[in-house]
Amino acid sequence: METLQYKDFGVDIDEGNSFVQALKPLVKETFNPLVLGGLGGFSGCFAMPTGYKNPILCAATDGVGSKLSLALSHNKLDNIGIDLVAMCVNDLICDFAVPMFFLDYYATHKLVSEDALRIVRGVAEGCKQAKCALIGGETAEMPSVYAKGDFDLAGFAVGIAERDDIQKRSSIAEGDVILGLKSSGFHSNGFSLVRGIIDTKKINVEMDFLGKTLIDSILEPTRIYVEPFLQHKDSIKGLAHITGGGIKENLIRILPENTQAIISESAIEIPEIYQFFLPYVDKEEAWRVFNMGVGMVVIVPKENAQKLAQSMQASVIGHIQTGQKQVIIK
Amino acid sequence: METLQYKDFGVDIDEGNSFVQALKPLVKETFNPLVLGGLGGFSGCFAMPTGYKNPILCAATDGVGSKLSLALSHNKLDNIGIDLVAMCVNDLICDFAVPMFFLDYYATHKLVSEDALRIVRGVAEGCKQAKCALIGGETAEMPSVYAKGDFDLAGFAVGIAERDDIQKRSSIAEGDVILGLKSSGFHSNGFSLVRGIIDTKKINVEMDFLGKTLIDSILEPTRIYVEPFLQHKDSIKGLAHITGGGIKENLIRILPENTQAIISESAIEIPEIYQFFLPYVDKEEAWRVFNMGVGMVVIVPKENAQKLAQSMQASVIGHIQTGQKQVIIK
Repeated sequence: METLQYKDFGVDIDEGNSFVQALKPLVKETFNPLVLGGLGGFSGCFAMPTGYKNPILCAATDGVGSKLSLALSHNKLDNIGIDLVAMCVNDLICDFAVPMFFLDYYATHKLVSEDALRIVRGVAEGCKQAKCALIGGETAEMPSVYAKGDFDLAGFAVGIAERDDIQKRSSIAEGDVILGLKSSGFHSNGFSLVRGIIDTKKINVEMDFLGKTLIDSILEPTRIYVEPFLQHKDSIKGLAHITGGGIKENLIRILPENTQAIISESAIEIPEIYQFFLPYVDKEEAWRVFNMGVGMVVIVPKENAQKLAQSMQASVIGHIQTGQKQVIIK
Repeated sequence: METLQYKDFGVDIDEGNSFVQALKPLVKETFNPLVLGGLGGFSGCFAMPTGYKNPILCAATDGVGSKLSLALSHNKLDNIGIDLVAMCVNDLICDFAVPMFFLDYYATHKLVSEDALRIVRGVAEGCKQAKCALIGGETAEMPSVYAKGDFDLAGFAVGIAERDDIQKRSSIAEGDVILGLKSSGFHSNGFSLVRGIIDTKKINVEMDFLGKTLIDSILEPTRIYVEPFLQHKDSIKGLAHITGGGIKENLIRILPENTQAIISESAIEIPEIYQFFLPYVDKEEAWRVFNMGVGMVVIVPKENAQKLAQSMQASVIGHIQTGQKQVIIK
């Protein structure tokens, strides 16, 4: 009787093993002394940091959404791993968690080491920016789910927070100042809309746009805010990562009852890449879908707001006042 | 100028919100007092367990591979979430880590709450079996990556181990006994091969097979070994989760230098579902791809091997002896 081999159906264990060898040096660059490379073997092992009074573990998972398809269709895969890390760690710091480690899941039609390494190189770069270690990952070949050349990417980040810090946002009150940390562009949200506009309006994304191609400006990797967070976390009362839902729906998540955030639209510098797309989008929709130039909102006490703004290269974009819990952009 | 809305391109924020509401009760069933539901907001928060001397965090990520496509094409989505949890937590316990929490990533063409809830119900069931809390997840609509009805699933588990425990496997030595814990069938490995056989041999998977349909037997959810691990971890020297690569390639990962594992093929009871497929597969290939009925290998000292085997409902399938590091199945 004719028997069948695993390779006949598109899964190649040996290619997988050789890929794992090639990515080892990339991964090692993200390590710190808490990573226990020699231990374990079935999972990634990380020594619990000491010195926390009431340590809380915080975990976040995310993908890069439709930004991935756009990057893929223009063969711009090198930075998408940065986006993946950013989406997760920018959430962690909003709960005052210091990122510790990261794992990625990469599933594709057929493993092509060269392409996969471009992705993982980005993930490792993102981990370095986020000061977290890449301690594990999964690479899956799924020819029946993914079309030829297609893939998906999911990320998982774990951080550690002091319990009292997570609760600091409950002290947000009238008079506090709202800072906006600049985004690098669209980050990883709103790409179904961006792609829809590109397609329906037949926009040539290879055109020159302020010294780059338009596609490179559109795909600019998501900014990672771990460094300013680590530098100033003791002075901060709250942070909100601006993703889908925009400033309104994300900032409201950290407001205590009976406080409202008043944002001055004119204080926000909308990046040039937005100016290109905004004429095609309903204004209210744009503020609901995009970060509009503010990737992270930080709430600080009035006393040191100016100093913090300067040190974080942030803009004062609003303030907190008493009132029905809501975010008003005017 | 005509402006475009996000919904026009297949992403519906409101449907996403209503799905999140529907899954809340499922998720809550997995909670324990260490889950800090009220805290955080951007990430899942979990209080660090106390009482560990040298706590090590262990993290694992996995998907369900091609088992997903087979489940999808036969509309058998209810248990695939159990497989997802199993693949992650069965790795954790091999590093002596007690599972703490789990997060899932679910990406699909278009969110259909009903289908997505079937998946998450399985994930929650898996978490209950693994005694870990489902503290987060991401649901992504990616119409440009996934075909209509298609989706992918990634899981991420974190556990906590005592440093000394992780190192116990270095004490594995001549005379130790190898136990095999029964698998429930194929688990989540080898499905590209299984599907290939079904397709090329035109097997009718709706046929009756020992009181179930063949497809239900094929898709039997992966067994989760957390409970026997928790009960007996102090008596165990090493565990190996048998996944792709089979007993040989997984068991060798926990062997110290100069020890070899001798497995007696005749001591392994190969499940009936395998008997159906093995005629189509090269024998060596089958042992490399499938678990062949042993989903978890456990190494214990000779003294209490019989008692442990009985208590864990495991079979004695081999022993350790001094020699060149290798796994010999004979």
